[in-house]
Amino acid sequence: MMIAASPWSLHSRLERDTMSVGDLPLSRLLAVIDANFPWVVLVPRRAGASEIIDLAEPEQAQLMIEIARVASALKSITGCDKLNVAAIGNVVPQLHIHVVARRVGDAAWPKPVWGAVPAKPYAAGELEPFITALRDTIGFA
Amino acid sequence: MMIAASPWSLHSRLERDTMSVGDLPLSRLLAVIDANFPWVVLVPRRAGASEIIDLAEPEQAQLMIEIARVASALKSITGCDKLNVAAIGNVVPQLHIHVVARRVGDAAWPKPVWGAVPAKPYAAGELEPFITALRDTIGFA
Repeated sequence: MMIAASPWSLHSRLERDTMSVGDLPLSRLLAVIDANFPWVVLVPRRAGASEIIDLAEPEQAQLMIEIARVASALKSITGCDKLNVAAIGNVVPQLHIHVVARRVGDAAWPKPVWGAVPAKPYAAGELEPFITALRDTIGFA
Repeated sequence: MMIAASPWSLHSRLERDTMSVGDLPLSRLLAVIDANFPWVVLVPRRAGASEIIDLAEPEQAQLMIEIARVASALKSITGCDKLNVAAIGNVVPQLHIHVVARRVGDAAWPKPVWGAVPAKPYAAGELEPFITALRDTIGFA
């Protein structure tokens, strides 16, 4: 007898802290609501996955394709000095990969962004153009 | 006329802070000399690469294979609670990917390890068994 797996759903903390950009073949792309940094998160839509190695090998390969696609778009949109890419998940166990555009002198530079400074709200009308630029550059179907 | 690329060599800071474990097809694997955390770094042997997206696509795919191989070994050796995988490089520009075995209650938990606590020296004879376990588990040729 087949046991139906629980369906995937976005962790409540990621839901609260982000806006949805769109779905890539494996992952949901989210924009983090923190005006300190252009910051997105990829969340593979696989229920129960907490580590990259919880994904099957073809999914790991697809994840790298999506990381590169999103990182290239973020670099092209922001002209950043450095990209930071990380799967940490010590607080939110659902597998998610941060892709952050860093600039020399930004609010946390040269430290990593996690826990460095309080999130800064976006001014009205500032987050939407970022999301639109991501959608246009990544080329969501 | 072809311009010869500079040969790859390990960044002096990585050289100073780590011990070599061995070479995978793309990356050199290093063990970080910090007894606070079982912590390794993968350094793709590609001169001038600073970002994952500086690698060609087949190299990006190979990097994911090596990340997964090393992460699985680290989890199996340490029985850790969480893996942290990250390409940051704000301080050392040479592309390098951290793979850290985290345990609830470790010296930085639940914060990321970078800049959290000063590096702790290994006691005599403690680092070598870790390196040997990595070599045996990963199965270097």
